[in-house]
Amino acid sequence: MDKMSSFSIHEGKPIRCKAALCRKAGEALVIEEIQVDPPQAYEVRIKIICTSLCHTDITFWKLDSGPFARFPRILGHESVGLVESIGEHVDGFKQGDVVLPVFHPFCEDCKDCKSSKSNWCAKFANDYISNTRRYGMASRFKDSTGEDIYHFLFVSSFSEYTVVDIAHLVKISPDIPVEKAALLSCGVSTGVGAAWKVANVEEGSNVAVFGLGAVGLAVAEGARVRGAAKIIGVDLNPDKFELGKKFGFTDFVNPTLCGEKKVSEVIKEMTGGGVDYSFECVGLASLLSEAFISTRTGSGKTVMLGMGNHAAPVSLGSFDLLSGRTICGSLFGGLKSKLDIPVLVDHYLKKELNLDSFITHELKFQEINKAFELLEEGKSLRCIIWMDK
Amino acid sequence: MDKMSSFSIHEGKPIRCKAALCRKAGEALVIEEIQVDPPQAYEVRIKIICTSLCHTDITFWKLDSGPFARFPRILGHESVGLVESIGEHVDGFKQGDVVLPVFHPFCEDCKDCKSSKSNWCAKFANDYISNTRRYGMASRFKDSTGEDIYHFLFVSSFSEYTVVDIAHLVKISPDIPVEKAALLSCGVSTGVGAAWKVANVEEGSNVAVFGLGAVGLAVAEGARVRGAAKIIGVDLNPDKFELGKKFGFTDFVNPTLCGEKKVSEVIKEMTGGGVDYSFECVGLASLLSEAFISTRTGSGKTVMLGMGNHAAPVSLGSFDLLSGRTICGSLFGGLKSKLDIPVLVDHYLKKELNLDSFITHELKFQEINKAFELLEEGKSLRCIIWMDK
Ligand SMILES: [Zn+2]
Ligand SMILES: [Zn+2]
Ligand SMILES: [Zn+2]
Ligand SMILES: [Zn+2]
Repeated sequence: MDKMSSFSIHEGKPIRCKAALCRKAGEALVIEEIQVDPPQAYEVRIKIICTSLCHTDITFWKLDSGPFARFPRILGHESVGLVESIGEHVDGFKQGDVVLPVFHPFCEDCKDCKSSKSNWCAKFANDYISNTRRYGMASRFKDSTGEDIYHFLFVSSFSEYTVVDIAHLVKISPDIPVEKAALLSCGVSTGVGAAWKVANVEEGSNVAVFGLGAVGLAVAEGARVRGAAKIIGVDLNPDKFELGKKFGFTDFVNPTLCGEKKVSEVIKEMTGGGVDYSFECVGLASLLSEAFISTRTGSGKTVMLGMGNHAAPVSLGSFDLLSGRTICGSLFGGLKSKLDIPVLVDHYLKKELNLDSFITHELKFQEINKAFELLEEGKSLRCIIWMDK
Repeated sequence: MDKMSSFSIHEGKPIRCKAALCRKAGEALVIEEIQVDPPQAYEVRIKIICTSLCHTDITFWKLDSGPFARFPRILGHESVGLVESIGEHVDGFKQGDVVLPVFHPFCEDCKDCKSSKSNWCAKFANDYISNTRRYGMASRFKDSTGEDIYHFLFVSSFSEYTVVDIAHLVKISPDIPVEKAALLSCGVSTGVGAAWKVANVEEGSNVAVFGLGAVGLAVAEGARVRGAAKIIGVDLNPDKFELGKKFGFTDFVNPTLCGEKKVSEVIKEMTGGGVDYSFECVGLASLLSEAFISTRTGSGKTVMLGMGNHAAPVSLGSFDLLSGRTICGSLFGGLKSKLDIPVLVDHYLKKELNLDSFITHELKFQEINKAFELLEEGKSLRCIIWMDK
């Protein structure tokens, strides 16, 4: 029986399949049999082909209090899948399409989705707590006892099947290897988008990137493609520097080796007055301040991408700001998923954008907990988890 | 004897004339006879026709400690004059030219002056302490006892004659009435420039301006010319609202009348989610935070223009920034004096830009201390002080 015909037999009915459940904060995921409901209106049920692990999964896996801490839950938000079936009012997707679920919504219809200046959908982007975009807390997952399972970031890709709202779904070319495409659903797109759309890095400019995780490396890759002159990486872990060269970094600063000097002073000396663009990819308020004053007086621009610690306010020197600097933040690299991801896919297919080097490990679904260990220990950039293997 | 021939007799020699000296912080200026040296290389000696008073004069008049507090000093940095004589290596200026001295430098030659993204001259803009741009602390003024008098912001227009570096001088069309032109050397250009060059306000956008002094009114005037839809003024003084209508304000918010609501909440309700652009024209860190969260999630941009209190750091909510907002600061509205002031003059001559309404008072040079009172008491916007009357 081929894939298509196996899909058709479940259309409109629940599917029983395997998913990795997070039942308690910080505890190993458990692979269990669950039930996945058919898609409602504006929803698509997807068979996940492969998924990867992002730091945000780890952050929420560990979170044990507040409105974002919910159990049992299916984590995972970087993945590629095939459309198994579609709900009512779904245009543009059909059974068998290769699709990328994306946590950040794009309704295509509201004032902000129609504006070239925003990627913050006025209809959907203010609620990251709901299970399903249009139906609030309703779940499409049940465990073997019939209990509801929480979704995560509207994707929940650590499951053989999942249900996704069309505001979170992008159809992509089947020409790109699926594991490369999966990278584009979060971290890598965030970094490349920040360089291209938020900062708009131009040829010959100087760039500093604070934090060389997958997002920081993707910023450098974006800056490299744009022809930046100096791309300076700042990280406490010197192992990142050798790796960084693959993504276009030309120089490195290890804060522990700067002696009496602040990192910003070292960067200003390296660039004759400061970089044109700096990117903070860790989510540490103090690091953001340092990234800010590393930029050139009169024109420097700092982009905040780090998701680490939203609680701490950002503090900036008044005169540092007044003397012509800009700082801005963005989610998902300022990208509009349905419009911009196909562009990134094209750049990959033309061999302009390096995605291959982000994949450092591949595992079977059964080994998913190992992916958490590798990322936490800083050993992996992106680990691809194959659902069928 | 006409002006030109009277000029020629002093060329290369000191001129004795009257100036209003600030001998002690906060004390009434005293009109004394001083000596003005001939211009050195790259300098021009100017006969001031009229000058106006800006809040920055008052700030520095009161300042009694730190490196910026210096006495005796000649304040004043908004003015128009005629070239009396030129030093060596001065191209583009000749005796009799109508000129506007500008505190913010533009050398035309450095990396930043040549860049379209910056108005922060790499050669000169980092030193606002020196007396003369190229010669450090050297003064061109002496009092009757032969003691050096400090310059102020490279202009010192409260004097019948002054000496200005060519990096601070703009030749303007003699078609514009001089008192209107004087406004363009600081506050009004700062406001209009912030709307046009820094924010780039576009037709149909919504704007909020915090603080309705001359700079805030000029921001509104700039936004009006650009075709902004709503221009919301925020001020504690309701007298400013009637005045504000002349400069394009469409709506007003008095923070003392908002009850339990924050100003930002009121603005969000008025605009269906927040303004596209907000401008802080007071220089208060807390007001800047409020201006920041008054903007629309995903695309809002805040411009800091206020010069009030540089000491306090700016504090921003991490998630407010991360959710697609931008904040930037600028001096002199992001303008390059020699390139952009002639454009503003053109807009005035074409009756597109309202400058007339900024002039609320006119005084003789002898009455200069009254101008300080009027501005401090919030009674004047701009008071023109005529040197010859
Ligand atoms: Zn939308
Ligand atoms: Zn992610
Ligand atoms: Zn310059
Ligand atoms: Zn001024």
